[in-house]
Order: sequence, then C-alpha cells, then structure tokens
Amino acid sequence: MAEPTRFDLSPDDIPTAWFNIMPDMVGAGIQPLPPLHPGTKEPITPDLLAPLFPEALILQEVSTEQWIDVPGPVLDIYRLWRPTPLHRAVRLEQALQTPARIYFKYEGGSPAGSHKPNTAVAQAYYNKESGVRRISTETGAGQWGSALSMACRFFGLECLVFMVKASYEQKPYRRIFMETFGAEVRPSPSSTTQAGKKILEANPDSTGSLGIAISEAIEIAATNDDTHYSLGSVLNHVLLHQTVVGLEAQKQMEMAGERPDVVVGCVGGGSNYAGLAYPFMAERLRGASTARFLATEPAACPTLTKGKFAYDFGDTGQMTPLLPMYTLGHDFVPAPVHAGGLRYHGDAPSISLLVREGHMEAAAYSQNEVFDAAVQFAQTQGIIPAPESAHAIRGAINEAVAAREAGQEKVILIGLSGHGHFDMQAYDDYLNARLPEVEFDPSAEEAALAGLPEVPVGG
Amino acid sequence: MAEPTRFDLSPDDIPTAWFNIMPDMVGAGIQPLPPLHPGTKEPITPDLLAPLFPEALILQEVSTEQWIDVPGPVLDIYRLWRPTPLHRAVRLEQALQTPARIYFKYEGGSPAGSHKPNTAVAQAYYNKESGVRRISTETGAGQWGSALSMACRFFGLECLVFMVKASYEQKPYRRIFMETFGAEVRPSPSSTTQAGKKILEANPDSTGSLGIAISEAIEIAATNDDTHYSLGSVLNHVLLHQTVVGLEAQKQMEMAGERPDVVVGCVGGGSNYAGLAYPFMAERLRGASTARFLATEPAACPTLTKGKFAYDFGDTGQMTPLLPMYTLGHDFVPAPVHAGGLRYHGDAPSISLLVREGHMEAAAYSQNEVFDAAVQFAQTQGIIPAPESAHAIRGAINEAVAAREAGQEKVILIGLSGHGHFDMQAYDDYLNARLPEVEFDPSAEEAALAGLPEVPVGG
Repeated sequence: MAEPTRFDLSPDDIPTAWFNIMPDMVGAGIQPLPPLHPGTKEPITPDLLAPLFPEALILQEVSTEQWIDVPGPVLDIYRLWRPTPLHRAVRLEQALQTPARIYFKYEGGSPAGSHKPNTAVAQAYYNKESGVRRISTETGAGQWGSALSMACRFFGLECLVFMVKASYEQKPYRRIFMETFGAEVRPSPSSTTQAGKKILEANPDSTGSLGIAISEAIEIAATNDDTHYSLGSVLNHVLLHQTVVGLEAQKQMEMAGERPDVVVGCVGGGSNYAGLAYPFMAERLRGASTARFLATEPAACPTLTKGKFAYDFGDTGQMTPLLPMYTLGHDFVPAPVHAGGLRYHGDAPSISLLVREGHMEAAAYSQNEVFDAAVQFAQTQGIIPAPESAHAIRGAINEAVAAREAGQEKVILIGLSGHGHFDMQAYDDYLNARLPEVEFDPSAEEAALAGLPEVPVGG
Repeated sequence: MAEPTRFDLSPDDIPTAWFNIMPDMVGAGIQPLPPLHPGTKEPITPDLLAPLFPEALILQEVSTEQWIDVPGPVLDIYRLWRPTPLHRAVRLEQALQTPARIYFKYEGGSPAGSHKPNTAVAQAYYNKESGVRRISTETGAGQWGSALSMACRFFGLECLVFMVKASYEQKPYRRIFMETFGAEVRPSPSSTTQAGKKILEANPDSTGSLGIAISEAIEIAATNDDTHYSLGSVLNHVLLHQTVVGLEAQKQMEMAGERPDVVVGCVGGGSNYAGLAYPFMAERLRGASTARFLATEPAACPTLTKGKFAYDFGDTGQMTPLLPMYTLGHDFVPAPVHAGGLRYHGDAPSISLLVREGHMEAAAYSQNEVFDAAVQFAQTQGIIPAPESAHAIRGAINEAVAAREAGQEKVILIGLSGHGHFDMQAYDDYLNARLPEVEFDPSAEEAALAGLPEVPVGG
C-alpha cells in the first residue's frame, strides 16, 4: 500500500453548522468596524438592508455566535457534491524536489466547477423562505452567476444575472450554463436600469465592470418588492457559508496526521479563501497555532498589497453601504486579466482586518508566473486549475521552493477553488506567449477615495 | 438524518484488479469471434499487433483470465480522482414522480472530465514500460485525446493526436486542453500521412471523421519504430480497464442495499458502458441476476439498433484488422451531432455479441429528446451532463416513467460518463431550438459492407 494521498470524508462528515470567525477576532482584540450608510456616513442599521436581503441573512451578517446551523434542505443539496476531497500533491512535491508536504482541498468537482455553490444554495434557500419570487445578482467571469442560477432553480426561484459585458461576449459558455438552469442573463451595462443607462450615456461602448453590474443588480432589487439581491463574496454571511470548506479540511488534515504551517488561497472578494482559512485562523487567534496565512491576488488588481484601508463603496454607482476594507477605489476597472473572479476593487472587511493586523500575509503575482504554476500543477496532478485558483498554486509553489532552499519541512495547504475547463482560452494565450504583463496604475485610486471616511487605526 | 443519497468508497476500495468478462461469456456459451487479418481475412496472430501495441496490452486483449492486476503506478494515478461517487438521484425521482430509485455513477470528476483516463493511464504505463518514446492516437470530440495527453505526460511519453478537423475547428478548448499537457495536435485529415493525403486529394475540404483519424494515427505508429498506437474504446483491453467503474459501483450499490434491475449507459465504441456494466453482466451470465442492460446511442449513428452484425474494418483506410461487430460500414460518416464520442461506425465486439445474444438491449434517441433529458437532469441534480452521457439519462428517464406508469418499483443504475462543461454550445443550440433532427441514411451501409466476411450465426 502506497502512502495515502487522498483523504476522503463520509457524507456524514459534512459540517452541519457554519463557523463564524467573529467571536475569535473580537477575542483577539480585533473589533469589526460597522458599514456606514452611503448617505449619512453613519453606521447602518439592519433595516436598511431589508429591501435587499432576507432577515435570516441580515442576522447572519451581524451575528456574534460561533456556530450557525446549516438548514436541512441546504445540507441535502450540499450532498450533491460534498464532502469534497483533500489530496496530497505528491507528484507536484516530487517535481519541485521539496521537503514540503503539499495538500490541496478541491472544490472544482461541484456542479458549477467551483466553491460558489456553497453559499449560493444557502442564499437561495433563505430567500425562498422569505417569500420573494426572484433574485438579482451580478457576475464577472460567470462562476457566481452559474452557481446562483443552479441554486435558484433548485428552490424554484427566478434568477436575473447582470453579466459584465466583456465576459458576456467572450465567455458564451458561462452564459449558456446559466440559461440551462433557466436564468435570465443580461449584459451589463444594460439599458434596463438607471445605473446602466447612466454608464451607457457617458460611454456607449462600455464593456462593463463588476462594480457597474452590482449597481444594476441592486437597483432591480431595491425597486422591486418581489426581488432580493444576492452577492457572491465580500459580505460576512457569504464568507460564513464557505466555511464548510475549511471545516472539512480540518478533519481531513487530522486524518492525514498533519497541521498546516501555511494556508494559501486566492482572494477576489475573499469568500473562497476565508472559507478555507477561518477555521484554521481561529486556532491562531486563540494562540493554539502559529500557522501562517497567505492571501494571493493578481498584480493587475492588487487590493491587499497596494490598496488603501479605507471606507469605500462596494459598487461603482455608490448604492451600497460603505465598507471598511482594502480598496483600489470603487471606480477602479482592472485590466482584463483572465482571473475574472479576482477583478474586484475591494476585499471582505474581515479579510482586510486580518491583513492589517498581521495575521494574514498577501502577495500579488503577474499572469505569466501564475500560469507557469497552473501548467506545472496540471502536468503533475492532472487538474487544470481555474486562473483564480492558480494564484494560490503560485503562492504554494513559492513556499515549497523556499522550503527546499532552506532545507525545511513544511506543511502547505492550498485552497483549489475551481477547475479551468471554462478558461481554456487563457491557457492558449499563455502557451502562445500572448499573455500581457499588466501593471497596476494607482492614479485612479487616490481620486476615488478622496473625501471618503478614514477608518480608525487599530479599530 | 435524511435518507442517504451518496455512497462513497474509501481510497482503499479502489479495485486492484480489472475484471475480464470473457470467462463468463464463454461459460454462457458465447464464444468470442477472432479478428481477421485485413489482407488474408484469416484470424490474426498476436504478432500482427506488435508494431502497434506493447506486449502486455496484446496479452490482455486475448486474455481468458478473470482478473488482471492493476499495476501499482497506475493505481497511484487512479487515486488522483478515484474512487468516484455513486449518487442516488432523489431530486430527479421526485420530479418524475416515479417509484423507481435512480442511481448514477459519476466519472465527470476526473481531471479530463470523463471516464477516459481510466484506460489512458493504463495504456500509457504499459507503453512506457515497453520502451517507446511516443504514442499516436485519434480523437473526435476530444475526450479521449485529453485523457491520453494527460496520461502520457504523467509517464514522460510524447503524445501525437489526430483530431477530427471539424472538432479541431469548432472545439478549440479541447485542443488547448491537450496542448496544456504538452501533446501535439494535428487536424485530420492532415497532409502528414499517406492516409490523410489520399483523403485530401479526393476532397480538399474534408472535415474528417473518426475513421480517417484512426487511419492516420495507425500509419504513424506502423511506420515509426519509436511510436505505438493507442485506441480509446472498442478493443477488449480498453473495456477491461474501464471495469474499475463497475467494480466500484457494485460495492456502492451494496452499500445502498440495492441490486440494479436495469443498468443504462451510452455506447460509442462501448468502453464506458462495458466498464460499468460488465461486473453486473457477469452475474446475469452466471444466472445469478435477471438485471436488464440498456445500451443507448444517437439516432444519427444507430450502430446497435440499425447496424449489421458483420466483420468490418475499424477505420476508413482499411488498415485495422476486421472486427466482428455491429457496424454501419467503415465509410459511414455520421451527421455532426453534438455527442461526438458516439459518432463511430462500429461497436466493441463483446458488446455486439451480448446484444446479438439478447443479454443487452439497445435504444436510439434523437438529439432533442436527449437534451430534454439532459436539462431535466441538470435542473434537478445540478450536473450538466456531457451530450454522450445524456443518452444514458434519456434511457433511464424512459425506464423511470415506465415504472411510474406500471406502478412498479425499479432500481435503475446510470453510467454518467462525463460533464458537459466543454459542450455548452450544444446546450445553446438546444435551448434556442437549433438542434436538427437527423435521420440515419442506411444507403452507405450496404455498399461498405458488400464483400466483407459474414460472421457465423450463434458463433
């Protein structure tokens, strides 16, 4: 019998409660900062969110409970693809000649090919319970829209997706995926909302951005009683739902007899990485672990490494509450790198705080070094990773190479959030040396953030 | 705790030997018929195959042993995605309001998104052991080429893939997938082989066929000492490797406390369906089970339902031995339906014999009824099936509806061979009512088979 390389849980091991990091952050002296009203700049009250979200999700957003039960109907659907596997990447280790032991938790086997259904299903469930007929949302590369379309169909909800126009035109497969589940997909900016019209008037050829699509989706929810809004990352309740990933990974690392020395993931809004990392992070915040946490991002959208920690809007149209986060400015439109899921101007507030307080490190990589890592991973482990997930692999390989150079054993845990079967064009561009190296231009950041409230230091 | 819907094996349960159906067929009085030499029309001897295949695979091709050990290095790679899950499709059952219980064995979670790596890895291993430098092969829609490209990379072999030109141009994602693993992909017919040149001279605009691509790949292997040939279906050793699917499914059905009343799969060359069905079929051949077996295929390429049981070539160029099988004629070029993996003019000899002897039923479906089933499956179970696999779902839904109408319980087991994430254009065509209903034209069949040896009845 060869050394085990795969650590599988039984369906009975799917977590029956989500894990809330907030008590541990507070316990470690890290107080969450309140979102501010976009008009008054005062802390918002939950009722402001009522037109957009069902009460159950609003309560989760501000919850201080450590554990929140997963409803039975959500668990039933989780069982369609959960528990997900944890693998040891022995073949990658051998290729790197590293003494490090590399593990990866793989979410690409879900029906949508990524981690996104973990929260989509929960959000659809609570929305159905609240009695609305429809959910509106935005999607960039399409992963989130795919997951929510599926989840809405499962619970008999309609789904309206504003898809960033550049992706709508370049990634028809993702649009078709959503339509297969009965969703309506509109290219954004569209002429069906005030927010969209305003953009189109100023720039009829706009190819859109995530910030614009968010504005459109929120407007629909805010102006239609039968429609709620749903977000695929950034917010506390979204990160909460993703902790099924990390809770499973904890059990699986125990099966492997290991504790991670470094936990690596990619961060767009932050829900994928938080989902994996927070159960492990809690151990660190309690002083029970000295594990390191490495958040990775594209050099073209370097929110955690080059953003400013400030209050900023979540969308271009300035309709959302102001969130305390690392941001490049709500007007920032990242260069069209292939990792569409990482092209967001901000980050989850809790991720931002953990980075500011030194519990989490961040690193940004260029597209070519990311795809170097992606192809090395594919050629050794077989799985072609999503461009987003490949950032985490880049970070992990760097850690493994450092371990080799230092002659140190090290246990590395990677969050592999999705497969790249919808992203083969990116691989073609890489293999044919057509991937431009994109530099971040900080000029827009300063202007966008001018006049917005500062966050208190050590808050 | 809800009723279990998922039956997961541990990595220790991956089969360590492949299951050979031949002893059971012989035991049931079904003698395999020998392949014939393409020139002499006499039974071939193993040495004829030596330029194309390593000795270990030739021995497997004619083996009468019940079990053949899986080599350790192959098992190590199987663990990258095996064991695969068995699900009960409760949500589909509910939508159909059927008393039938529907299970599906899902191979779409493999790195290539289908069952094909199960044999690709084994074939690459034996070829590497035999000392060749390179493998040549053909691919239609791209699933097989993807799997073999990955497997060759794992064992340090070069891989040359002749890809049917129509697919090469319409499915760039599959080409890029292969290139990501370092394979060389040539559109077929190509000007790099005599077989390809001959076709191009007669028809410069030929968009190719699987039969032509096979001729090209075989020619490369036959004329280069350092190159072997590899086939992704049809041959005994290929079906043998796929039995890991059925062996796992047997254990998983036992976990579920069920025995299948009907086992449904799709048949192109037959390896996917044989892989699932043969361990169960052996019970039937031994008189220990009365389970039914339903092989499904496209109405546009109805080999089992409208083909003739005859000796025919496996390729257009008449380079392969003559195989005893249901065939539409080696010149037959099926209409371009989206289930590219089912567009082959023949079938595996063992599948053909089991159909002829009444142990296996066959049904052919039109594209629109197949996609009706595919979308119903996606909307209930989440997984968007490959167009090929959707044929099996169509068959299973028909069985479940019949059970409802008869008021009968029935246990249905589906082979879900792959996901459809590379096939979204087919779904778009279906959703927009652009899928033509293709009629089979039998006229070519008669001409192609004229003069070829008849097979003995009851042979």
